[in-house]
Amino acid sequence: MSDTGGVAANQLRAFVERIERLEEEKKAIADDIKDVYAEAKGNGFDTKILKQVIALRKKDPAEREEQETILELYLAALGMMPTPEE
Amino acid sequence: MSDTGGVAANQLRAFVERIERLEEEKKAIADDIKDVYAEAKGNGFDTKILKQVIALRKKDPAEREEQETILELYLAALGMMPTPEE
Amino acid sequence: MSDTGGVAANQLRAFVERIERLEEEKKAIADDIKDVYAEAKGNGFDTKILKQVIALRKKDPAEREEQETILELYLAALGMMPTPEE
Amino acid sequence: MSDTGGVAANQLRAFVERIERLEEEKKAIADDIKDVYAEAKGNGFDTKILKQVIALRKKDPAEREEQETILELYLAALGMMPTPEE
Repeated sequence: MSDTGGVAANQLRAFVERIERLEEEKKAIADDIKDVYAEAKGNGFDTKILKQVIALRKKDPAEREEQETILELYLAALGMMPTPEE
Repeated sequence: MSDTGGVAANQLRAFVERIERLEEEKKAIADDIKDVYAEAKGNGFDTKILKQVIALRKKDPAEREEQETILELYLAALGMMPTPEE
Repeated sequence: MSDTGGVAANQLRAFVERIERLEEEKKAIADDIKDVYAEAKGNGFDTKILKQVIALRKKDPAEREEQETILELYLAALGMMPTPEE
Repeated sequence: MSDTGGVAANQLRAFVERIERLEEEKKAIADDIKDVYAEAKGNGFDTKILKQVIALRKKDPAEREEQETILELYLAALGMMPTPEE
């Protein structure tokens, strides 16, 4: 009945509106996150490093440490840090 | 008192936890959006086009129409569609 | 002999330098692309639409037309354009 | 003379072709970069860490060290590594 050119208009509209509502909520939360970073910055924290911390916390500690070790080996091999003790 | 190397540990922890909680909420909503698209797909809608529709709805209709007109002119000039009537 | 902590330093350095050289080349070309868009803009072309044209040219014409048809059906169903004739 | 609906068709086509040629070149280089990473992987290197090394080399060493120090302070404050000596 409410088909337009074979498209179930009501159903399509419902999907579109659900997605738009969810995208608004997502945007509101993204804005909240920005606000917390701004507040942290206002309290003297380095937001770039804060982002690194958040990313590191998602990793398994053992895996994180292993990757850090490999990174240091590579940097040492390239003369970018003191050669690690063997 | 709870400073570690000059960093206000409690304050830092509070910021980190607020950000992590918000990021979880954001991820949950992003998952909801994916679910709605999957449901739309299950109902026969083309999700790629649905995304285009959502993007187009954010634009001002007059601006959208103007851009569509320019696009058609360019495509016509390149022989990618029938020359528009003048 | 040039191993540092088990890492073949010369080999690592060679990989790093090859990647860095290629990334420089890639950046130079990306800059050239920006320059061409700027030149097109200076000649009165709409660069945003130009980008759409480039993207559309990558698609198969039949597929492109089919997607355009579906998009118009959806937009019509949502009252965002005149109902297409059936 | 070759205008189509007010668009200088030859000029538009020239811009489009220049952009497409440059984008092809850029893609070829991006593929080369992937190949070098694959070759490095085949020689036992960790490509994820290799990417980190490449990113770190773009930074000023003093700035890099300062950021590393702040990161370690934050991680220590969060109990994610041994408290640094003061």
